Amino acid sequence: MRTNPERRQALIDAAIEVLAKEGARGLTFRAVDKEAGVPAGTASNYFTNRDDLLTQAGSRFYERLQPSEATMTKLAEGPRTRANITELMMEVVGRIEAFRTGYLAILELRLEATRRPELRAILTERVRADIEFNVRNHLDSGMPGDEKSVLLLYLALNWLIVDRLTLPDIFTDEQSRELIAAAVERIVGDQD
Amino acid sequence: MRTNPERRQALIDAAIEVLAKEGARGLTFRAVDKEAGVPAGTASNYFTNRDDLLTQAGSRFYERLQPSEATMTKLAEGPRTRANITELMMEVVGRIEAFRTGYLAILELRLEATRRPELRAILTERVRADIEFNVRNHLDSGMPGDEKSVLLLYLALNWLIVDRLTLPDIFTDEQSRELIAAAVERIVGDQD
Repeated sequence: MRTNPERRQALIDAAIEVLAKEGARGLTFRAVDKEAGVPAGTASNYFTNRDDLLTQAGSRFYERLQPSEATMTKLAEGPRTRANITELMMEVVGRIEAFRTGYLAILELRLEATRRPELRAILTERVRADIEFNVRNHLDSGMPGDEKSVLLLYLALNWLIVDRLTLPDIFTDEQSRELIAAAVERIVGDQD
Repeated sequence: MRTNPERRQALIDAAIEVLAKEGARGLTFRAVDKEAGVPAGTASNYFTNRDDLLTQAGSRFYERLQPSEATMTKLAEGPRTRANITELMMEVVGRIEAFRTGYLAILELRLEATRRPELRAILTERVRADIEFNVRNHLDSGMPGDEKSVLLLYLALNWLIVDRLTLPDIFTDEQSRELIAAAVERIVGDQD
């Protein structure tokens, strides 16, 4: 098993591109080598099998979408208002939409997870950790809104992103911003 | 081009099963013939090409999920309350979740649509019609809530279904019901 960490990461990033472009079924070691521009046979030296590569691509998606310092500071130090939550949510949605291939890859992985119990277990753990992280951060921040607010925003904004990335003519940029603002206004409530 | 309508429908339903089981890439005329239990070569007599079959599978999903008479009556004649909307939403989510392979197939089609402009145009039209139907029905019903309520419920409940069907350990049945109730309560507001 090879261990060059930069090479490994480049292969995982290439796997994300292949997943988005070709679908889960198109993900082969050969396709990943080609996408990464490395000699045929390289990926097979870094991953024990295709499942290994799939699960590492899933983790990498969450790694690459970690909020920026600026966002964490805004959450920690910005005003405790709904308007600030709206700004934060627009930032999150924008950040995820900008990593288009990553989000499409994670949708491919979710569908592949319906066929692969091991992948399903790993994605379940990852999504659960992500939800818990968001709930804890929100409650610790002292922002208006409760656990249900975080869960309902998670639900609404994820499907908004699905629509925007798969059928981009459903909601325009402006409609998207209006929906995010309305979601925060109604879901967070008016405790502030 | 063969025209037996029952045979055609059986082939489209078989295509939905293949999409859910094998992914968009696994959808071939051969796989559909096999799934439908018909002689090899049958599907190719009913559809001009694979794109034709994909788009018909997309339309069929919406056809099979038409609300029941009972649901339409409840919407038309039930009490104009949030509690009634909650019941209706639980019914809709339950109906969609019960057609598990159909929903997984439509997710596969959305991902395939990122690669096929013609499929994207057809799905966009279908989804837009579905959203407009729901908005109009809701506003005509005189139920509490506005257009934004319908759109936000559409967003939140779709991703709830994605979670329930792809990573079923994220939310239990009870959590799912609580989320639907909370979504209606907050998104529809308290005009009633």
